[in-house]
Amino acid sequence: MSQHRHPGAPGRAGAVPALPDLPEATVARLPEYLRALHALADTGHETVSSEGLANAAGVNSAKLRKDLSHLGSYGTRGVGYDVTLLIDQIESVLGLTQCRSVALVGVGNLGHALAGYDGFASRGFRIAALFDADPSRVGEEINGLVVRHVDELARVAVEESISIGVIATPAPAAQAVADQLVAVGVTSILNFAPCVLSVPEGVDVRKVDLAIELQILSFHEHRKASLTALPGGLAATDTQEAIGT
Amino acid sequence: MSQHRHPGAPGRAGAVPALPDLPEATVARLPEYLRALHALADTGHETVSSEGLANAAGVNSAKLRKDLSHLGSYGTRGVGYDVTLLIDQIESVLGLTQCRSVALVGVGNLGHALAGYDGFASRGFRIAALFDADPSRVGEEINGLVVRHVDELARVAVEESISIGVIATPAPAAQAVADQLVAVGVTSILNFAPCVLSVPEGVDVRKVDLAIELQILSFHEHRKASLTALPGGLAATDTQEAIGT
Repeated sequence: MSQHRHPGAPGRAGAVPALPDLPEATVARLPEYLRALHALADTGHETVSSEGLANAAGVNSAKLRKDLSHLGSYGTRGVGYDVTLLIDQIESVLGLTQCRSVALVGVGNLGHALAGYDGFASRGFRIAALFDADPSRVGEEINGLVVRHVDELARVAVEESISIGVIATPAPAAQAVADQLVAVGVTSILNFAPCVLSVPEGVDVRKVDLAIELQILSFHEHRKASLTALPGGLAATDTQEAIGT
Repeated sequence: MSQHRHPGAPGRAGAVPALPDLPEATVARLPEYLRALHALADTGHETVSSEGLANAAGVNSAKLRKDLSHLGSYGTRGVGYDVTLLIDQIESVLGLTQCRSVALVGVGNLGHALAGYDGFASRGFRIAALFDADPSRVGEEINGLVVRHVDELARVAVEESISIGVIATPAPAAQAVADQLVAVGVTSILNFAPCVLSVPEGVDVRKVDLAIELQILSFHEHRKASLTALPGGLAATDTQEAIGT
């Protein structure tokens, strides 16, 4: 079986080919595969088996094969997947062939960490603007970018062609920031504030709540404790859940 | 129908009641419900309808009712859920009735943000110890805690009864830190390093990769662009995906 490549819907007109409507869980795993594939490419690997790639990405290989089949990628029997080709396919589907500009609103501790996180640039994202409502933070320079007042958001977002907004403000300020981002045409928001944002149709919001992650782990700790207290002893639980799966 | 409460497996012996084996996605949503319920309690609400709670938590109400039915909680027709009782039930299932001690390893920008994040304490977690391998960081005080050398991890983890380890180191250091945490009996790890950790059975790992969140948003941006380029126009996509769902 050869490796096919047809991420678009063939025969339809348009400047950008239509993308497959992938299951959300598959979309969430593609970046994992991509990271593992880049690591393989960096160490000189030209092909990889589904088992090898599944291990490197921390998923089971049946799930990986199914995910990649959604992209029309089946690998070659006895050889596996072509590493470079698969990187191209996944980056194409994720829209990473163009660099996306990110605006970060809120430069407290977490905002500082995000502004200084060098993992963004290497994966197709450019932090293009930093904002805060606190006058004492405005003018501060972080990683070569000067923090601006959030009142400048509308103007700067247009100037910098912002496509993704990251909200790292306290919860009470988050909705107003989201409204401002939406008003200037931003349709993707990553929300670190511990609250639910209300946004119009067509706007995607992903939320990262760090305390929630700990509470999920707490459940597993609690459950393990409850199982060891029973005659049956400790059940095997070695889940390594990735975010979004 | 009245509100039942039987989170344990009745009729089995043991100091701690056995917990229901909930779907992972349900576990991931329980903290969302809990946050919404606390907000309702703080504003004087004694009961809440499934629709009201679902809206506040950003999920649909059918999913919410199904999730809560796993806890044996069905609400009362025409009245809804008792807010205080439901808080107790969820906190009990999540094991939040006891405060859990957290060790944070790696106090770079992200580690600083996590150490200073006051959302942990209010939700049942105590950052009990900070570690770093960099001698220039050891001795630094963050939020009243002194950063210790990671070589002290084993001793301190026992002293402080650490139950959850948070890894905020660079990727190359993460596996060694995980091994040390596992060696001292930590069975729950929250990993911010962009790599897959290898852990023995019985250890739960949750991973937060900030760039992956952006890549998932990138897919949706890319897809929206591809749809607007087609005759059919923009498809409605107003997903608000919470982490872990």
